[in-house]
Formats: sequence, structure tokens, C-alpha cells
Amino acid sequence: MSKKALSILLRTRMRRPNDHSKLSPSSVMKPTAIDQMQLDGRKLREQGNEFVSGGLGVSKREMGSVLESMRAAITMKKTEFPDSVLDEFSEGYLFLSHEDRMNLLLVLAKEYDCDRASVRDLMKQYLGIELPAGDKAQTNGPEEDVRLSAFYRTEKNLRQALKPAYELLFEQLNTHRGGLKFLTILRADILSILREENIASLRALDTDLKEKLITWLSPAALELHQLTWDDSASLLEKIVACEALHPISSLVDLKRRLGVGRRCFGYFHPAIPGEPLIFIEVALLRKVAETIQEVLWDEPPIPEHEATCALFYSISSTQPGLAGINLGKFLIKRVVTLLRRDMPHISTFATLSPIPGFMQWLLSKLASQSKLAEAEGMPYSSKENTSLTFQENILEPEEENALLELSIDGRNGMEKMLNLISNADEWASSDEFLAVLKTPLMRLCARYLLQEKKRGKALDSVANFHLQNGAMVERINWMADKSEKGLAQSGGIMVNYVYRLESIEDYAQSYFTSGTIQASADVHRYVQLNKHSSSNE
Amino acid sequence: MSKKALSILLRTRMRRPNDHSKLSPSSVMKPTAIDQMQLDGRKLREQGNEFVSGGLGVSKREMGSVLESMRAAITMKKTEFPDSVLDEFSEGYLFLSHEDRMNLLLVLAKEYDCDRASVRDLMKQYLGIELPAGDKAQTNGPEEDVRLSAFYRTEKNLRQALKPAYELLFEQLNTHRGGLKFLTILRADILSILREENIASLRALDTDLKEKLITWLSPAALELHQLTWDDSASLLEKIVACEALHPISSLVDLKRRLGVGRRCFGYFHPAIPGEPLIFIEVALLRKVAETIQEVLWDEPPIPEHEATCALFYSISSTQPGLAGINLGKFLIKRVVTLLRRDMPHISTFATLSPIPGFMQWLLSKLASQSKLAEAEGMPYSSKENTSLTFQENILEPEEENALLELSIDGRNGMEKMLNLISNADEWASSDEFLAVLKTPLMRLCARYLLQEKKRGKALDSVANFHLQNGAMVERINWMADKSEKGLAQSGGIMVNYVYRLESIEDYAQSYFTSGTIQASADVHRYVQLNKHSSSNE
Repeated sequence: MSKKALSILLRTRMRRPNDHSKLSPSSVMKPTAIDQMQLDGRKLREQGNEFVSGGLGVSKREMGSVLESMRAAITMKKTEFPDSVLDEFSEGYLFLSHEDRMNLLLVLAKEYDCDRASVRDLMKQYLGIELPAGDKAQTNGPEEDVRLSAFYRTEKNLRQALKPAYELLFEQLNTHRGGLKFLTILRADILSILREENIASLRALDTDLKEKLITWLSPAALELHQLTWDDSASLLEKIVACEALHPISSLVDLKRRLGVGRRCFGYFHPAIPGEPLIFIEVALLRKVAETIQEVLWDEPPIPEHEATCALFYSISSTQPGLAGINLGKFLIKRVVTLLRRDMPHISTFATLSPIPGFMQWLLSKLASQSKLAEAEGMPYSSKENTSLTFQENILEPEEENALLELSIDGRNGMEKMLNLISNADEWASSDEFLAVLKTPLMRLCARYLLQEKKRGKALDSVANFHLQNGAMVERINWMADKSEKGLAQSGGIMVNYVYRLESIEDYAQSYFTSGTIQASADVHRYVQLNKHSSSNE
Repeated sequence: MSKKALSILLRTRMRRPNDHSKLSPSSVMKPTAIDQMQLDGRKLREQGNEFVSGGLGVSKREMGSVLESMRAAITMKKTEFPDSVLDEFSEGYLFLSHEDRMNLLLVLAKEYDCDRASVRDLMKQYLGIELPAGDKAQTNGPEEDVRLSAFYRTEKNLRQALKPAYELLFEQLNTHRGGLKFLTILRADILSILREENIASLRALDTDLKEKLITWLSPAALELHQLTWDDSASLLEKIVACEALHPISSLVDLKRRLGVGRRCFGYFHPAIPGEPLIFIEVALLRKVAETIQEVLWDEPPIPEHEATCALFYSISSTQPGLAGINLGKFLIKRVVTLLRRDMPHISTFATLSPIPGFMQWLLSKLASQSKLAEAEGMPYSSKENTSLTFQENILEPEEENALLELSIDGRNGMEKMLNLISNADEWASSDEFLAVLKTPLMRLCARYLLQEKKRGKALDSVANFHLQNGAMVERINWMADKSEKGLAQSGGIMVNYVYRLESIEDYAQSYFTSGTIQASADVHRYVQLNKHSSSNE
């Protein structure tokens, strides 16, 4: 790919993020439909909640004809040859305005679920049948077997009747070229509607579609490829568009991430060719980096043979329509295997990860606890006993004292801290504030990572991802990501998770069975301190 | 691959088809488990209905521990990391004796289907709920939406309760490395049991597993690769083992099928690496071949640039556990596209296909009709009127006369023909018999192909395959396959289906919607003759 072509591409992205009409990603099968899909997928991602109409100067399709092809696709027999009908529907859909897409999805959710009258009839029939006694034992003879066959048939019919009609459409699309990609666009639209308004029937449809997508996107079917500067512009364009954690700022930046001392691997599904579903960026370093600045801006890179550490510094998924579906299973393990084969001198496999839920958790904890503390302090408050149970000063005494000395609004340490850290521009650029905040933020971050759980698993999504892959929490790094996002989400802190080859399986297993989070002594120390002081309260 | 290595491989296959212990197909991930799977898949295929125990000198696993790991895998939570449990189960299973496999599958089918007590409870609950009125219209407000949510939840719970527990095991295995391959082995075992004995619960399990496999093996996810002499021995070994239509007899034969003037393409699924699920063999020729002998034994091949015809002469599937699942969708279309791109001088795409159901159909037709004819001829028979309705002399008068002149047992032409063609050794090596049989066999073959249907589709499975792919019946060829199998199944006749690029879509569509079978004037002529004489009866 010529440097000029890619720089045009990057400029397009940087200057006019919502207009890709000048780009035409190549496609062998169906240029129009797939181009459109790709454009839409990207646009949806970039515009967040916004729908995108077909555009491209083509007039919008009639809603009626798209509805008609949808109906035809659903009522068609299975295992037959409905390619043209499915093409018509999916192409038609992509040219609908966003209002029409929403209306169509609501029709699908409400009118094409299950035939409840026949469900009720079958249920009454089923309840009238005696439970087969021979079911748990060996069959007792031909008559019994005939009776059992009839029973299983009724059960199967019931299952069939309860299956929403739209599942047929999803199944047809899954077998269709480009259909899986189309389904991810459909789901992105659905999620976008549901963020605006919680519609029960559409929620039920989404649950159904998500379940289907999970079984269709089996991690065992995903293929790992290294992405390099020799890949096509259309592929690299997607990397640029989808790197959400540490945005790619320039042509030089992109080339750097694919060049010497760096690796980029993508997980591809054969039914969605030409774009990875998820990709991971790796830096080859002399030691585990503490800050993202070192990784993104170190120059020149070290000679690769001197590297002893492979640092995973970014994992991005590319399909908003696959939200909530874990595609990363095996990814780390396979990349580690690959890197070790090619570079036996690398002995440490670590990440440099954000803690995306930390500040949100901390802010809400500070808000609720400072209110409880205030209520306790007021003599005539109507405080109840129950509130006391949940009350806790999440600050250590010396942290509280240091905070109280600051000239910030707030009637106690927690309220002061809340007010202070709510404005990242202010605290992160002041040495005085940083000095006061470092101790409590680092300690509470360790607590958040090691002790805050939801259904027995780490509350933080990135922590949960790496822990279930068999990693341990090795180190937390102060002011490791000073970007706006890094400060707002992770309080500027980053964490190194480490994968030790000899313990990956054991750690994954014990996290899976008992929720055990493995951590280094250094990280544990922050929390032990906290425990000690809690027992004094 | 060295010639010597492959000749050892071929010798192994030809001399000791049931002992592959000397071969060790390579495998990166899990040598023991996957080797075993591959061996088993092949052995199952070769031995037909026979189960294969683990063998390889390793002692058999305890049934109890395999059952235990199966139970653990089923009761595990979803989306977690049960890799070790699944490994234990699948490896353990492969080392079970065939009796133990059967017992385990019966336990799975009978004890791990659905919890019928909770299904009944949920049904009673469901029947007590009023059908949501707002379901077909826009939602009417937040209260209505809450009520609807509760309704959809109940419906989902019911679906969940009706889902057999073994589906969870299948789903877990599908996400697991090597799991999809393992499931095909499991299904091959199930089919093998069901051929011996029809057990209702196991039949229900098979229906469920088949449905799952269909959605997991989406044709959109299959990848087409050309197989050549440069492919690995382990891959080519599978081609040798699975070519069932025209068995590969020697090293020279295999090399010939991958060499100049020939092509071999395989459809691969990313979760089953290293072996095609289905493969197709192509010969590049000057004209559409009439006999398989020309294709397999013509020497030397013509220069490829002189070819004007690509002849598909064999399609084989490799997984007995995927029986009944159509993997060929798109295959022909994609191979045609590929060939046309590389060789624009090729203008005809045709097959040389067997008619595998022809003789079976003909023998049963002759048996029933000659009985009816005999009954009619007897003055005091208790024949009913109904039998007359179905009665038909399927022979033309001149065919009948020619047959009656032969010194073969039989009271009428049909009975003589039945007795004659029941013994292929006899009629196919006699010029006299061949001369008499040619006219009726060719005519009845055309009738079988064009007019005999089941549920509106061609009765013959190979005909149905090509017709639904958009082909037409171009020509039938007398004594085109004189192999034992060719004579026994197809009466020695082969058929050329032709794919005309400009009409593939239309033909597929009209076959799909109305069952229309497109055929050349030549083939139609056989049947028109038949119609004409029928009207005289």
C-alpha cells in the first residue's frame, strides 16, 4: 500500500469521521451490499447511538418492499435456496432510513415471535400425556418405544412452536454469504434503539439474537493472523477506526505499531472476511512498561533480539453488534504460544491495561459514603440502623487528614475527595493534589481490583477478562495514562497483568471455580493495609 | 512429501485398512486426543457400522470417570473456562470400548434431557397468564412494558426448561478446540447405534445434535482450498481414505488426480483444521466425458490450454458424523467461479455422476409390478380394485417382447428383467443381455431422473444435489461405469449434469419453488416416448 493512499485514508478519518463516501473498500462478492455494510458498521461505531441512513446519494428503499422480502425470508422452507430473497432483504435494509429500520425491527420483534395460540394448544396436549416411565431405564419393548417416540415428538413440536419466527430469519442469514456480518449490523441497530428506550419485545429479540451469535462465533472457529504494513488499506483502515483504547493519531503512529519491536494480531472469522473481530497490539520491550507513554512514544525501538518481555498494550473489538460476546477466549494463549515459538528469548508476557470501571466505582462509593457519614454526623437526622451497616469510611485516617487540609469544598475527607477527583483537569495537573491523592487512589484501586466483585467475578471488565484467561495482577502504576480518558476512567492508573506460562491453567481454573484473584505481594500489600485499618473501626 | 512416504501410506491403506497405528498424523494442539479422533473417524468410515475402541495399546478408561467428567461438563456454568473438564471427557470417551460408548450415550440421551417436572410447572404458570394484548401494537406505556417483560421472561424460562441438558454439552464442545470434530465422532457413533436399533430417546438426541451441527457448520464459514501434491501426507491420506465413489487405487492414481489436467478442491471448516469436510475432483477435458473410464484412465492428459470443459467427476464427504447435512451448498458455484477466473477458455461445466438410487428403485418397482401383473393374470385371485390403480407395465411392448424371448426365469417381461438385472455379474458381461436391456434401462433411468419425486424433489440424492445447485440433466450414458458398484447402483449408467452459468440462479430457483427439473431435449425424448405409450394402455 502506498504511503500516500494511507495518509489520505487517515486524513479522511481524522478530518471527516462521518463521511467515508470517498473510500471504497474492495470486496469480491457483492461490492454494493458489503461496502455498505462496512461503511455502516464503522459509522455506527463512530456515531455512538446514532443510526445511519444509507446515504451515498442512492434514494431510500421503500419500507414496504423490504418488509415484504423479510416476510418471504421468514416463511421460506429451510435448507433451500433463498439467496436472492436474503440479498434483497439485507440490501434493502441497509438503504432504509433509521426511522424505517427501527419500525422494521419492531415489526420483526412483535409480529414474528411465536404463535402463542398453537403454543397453548400444544401445552394442553402435553400436560395431558403421562410422563414416560421407561424414560430413565432401558426401553421395555417395541410398544413402549412407539409411545416414547410420540412423546419426544410432542416435546419437539412444543420446542418448535416456542421458537420465535425471527430465529428462522437469523438462521437463514447465518448460512448466507455476508449474512453474519449483516446480523452484527442488525444487532448494533437493536442495541442502539434499546439504549434509548427499553422495549420488552425488542429486548427479547436481542437476547435471542445474542445467544445465536454466541454459538455461531465459536472461538474454536476464529483464526489468528498477524497484521502488518503489507496488509490491505481496507484492513488497516479498520484497525485505525476501531482502536478505541489508544487512538492511532497519524500515519507514523500506525506504521510504528506494525513495525520493528511491535506486533499486531487479529482474530478473524471465515464468514466475516477482511476484518478482524478483535485485535491485540504487542510491544517487545526490555522490561514490563509502567506507563503507556513509554510504549507509544519510545524511540527508537530496541532491537528485537534484546527483548525479554512481550507487552499486550491494547485489545480492541471492532463490531459494536457483538457487544457482550466474549471473543477473546484463547486469544492471549494463542498469541503467547506464537510469540514463544518465534522468540524463545522472551520470558515475560504482561499487559499494560486500563482499569475502566475504577473511577465510576470510586465516585459512586464516595458519593454514597460521604452522604451516610454526613447523616451520621447530624444529631437530628432520621438515620436508620440499616444505613450504619453499609457505612464505612473508605479513607485511612492519614489520608483523611491530608484531604481535610486541602482548600476544597466538602464536609469530610470523602466529600472533599469526591469533589476533587470529579474534575480531572484540575487535580491531575496540580502537584499538590497529586501528592495527596496518590496514596488513597492507589490503595483503593488495589481494593477495587482484588476485592470488588459481582457474582463472584472481578467487577472490572478488563480485570475479569485477563483473570479468566489465567493472568495475575502484578503491579499498579501511578500516572501511567494521563490522557483525558485514562484520567476519567482509571484515575490515570494502569495495571500490569502477567501471564506465567506454568500457571495459566491453574489460575484460570481457580478463578473459574472459586473466584480466586491471584496477585503479587506488592499489590496485596495495599489491601492488607486497608484490612488492618478496617478492623480498627 | 516424498514419494516413498506416500507409497507407504497407500500400502498401509490397501493392505491393512483397519490398522493405522503406524501412521501419526501431525497435530499442533493435542496430539493424543486429535490423533485418536482422526483415526476413529477414518476407522468408523471404513468399518461401516462397527464401533472402534481406543486401542493403540492403551488400557481402556474407566467408564465411571468419563461419566463423571460428562456430568461435570453439563452442570458447569456457561461462558466459563471448562477446558480441562471438556478435554477429560472427550479424551476419556475416545478410549472407551464400544459397549461403554453406547451405554454412555444412552445415559446422556435418557438422563440428561429436560427436567419435565419444572417444564410442567412453568407450563401451568404460562397458561395462567393472559396473552399480552399490546403485543401486536405499539407499547402502551411503562406498566404495560413491565407486564410484557415478565411475560417474555416466562416464555424464555419455558424455552430454557424445554432445552435438553445435553445441548449444553454440545454447545460447550462447540466452543472448545477440537470439540466440533469430537461432536462429529459422537454423532457417527449415535448413527451407528441407531442403524442397529431405533431407540426413541437416542433418536431425539440425534435430531437435536444434527440441528445444532447444521447451524454451526454454516456454508458461509467454509473455506475452499485447492489440494495439490504439495499438501501434507496427513491431508492426502484423508483424501485416499474418503474417496468412496471412485476409490484411489495407487500412488500413481492419486498423483494423477492432483496433477496436470486435474483439480481437487476441498471445503474446510476452521474448527476442523487439516481435513476437508467435503472435496470435489475435476478433470479438464476437450469435451464432456461419457464414461468414468475415460476420466480415470486417459493418458496422457491433454495440455490444459486446450481444455474447454471442466468435468466434476467425484464429490466425497469425509465425516460420517455429518450425514444428512448439506455441506455442498455454494461448493460448485465457488469452484466454477474459481476455474473461470483462472481459465477463461473453459466454457462448459459438467459432472459425470452416478445415479445411486436407480437400481434400488427399479428393482422394487419391477418386483411390485410383476406381482401385480401376475395377480391380474390369475383368474381366481383375490385382487382388489385398488391394486389396479397402481398397476402399470413399466415396459414398452417391444421391450417386453425382447425380454420374453430370453431364456430367463419369469412369467412376464418385468419378472424376467427383475431376475436378469438382480445379478450384475451375469447381464453386464453378456452382449446378448446388454443388447436387450439397453433400451428399457436407459428409458427407465431417464424416467427415474426426471419424474420420480419425493416431497416434490428428485428422488435420487445426487440428482437432487445438483438440481438444487442449479444444474440441468444433459445426457445419460450407457455402460459408463462398469465397476461392481456402478453396475449394482446405477445399472452401469452415468449422467452428465451441466451447469450453465447464465441459468444457474434461475434453475435453482424454479427447482426450489416448483420442483421443475431442467433437462436437455435428448433426455426428455426418452420420457416422451414413455408418456406416449402410457396413454395407449
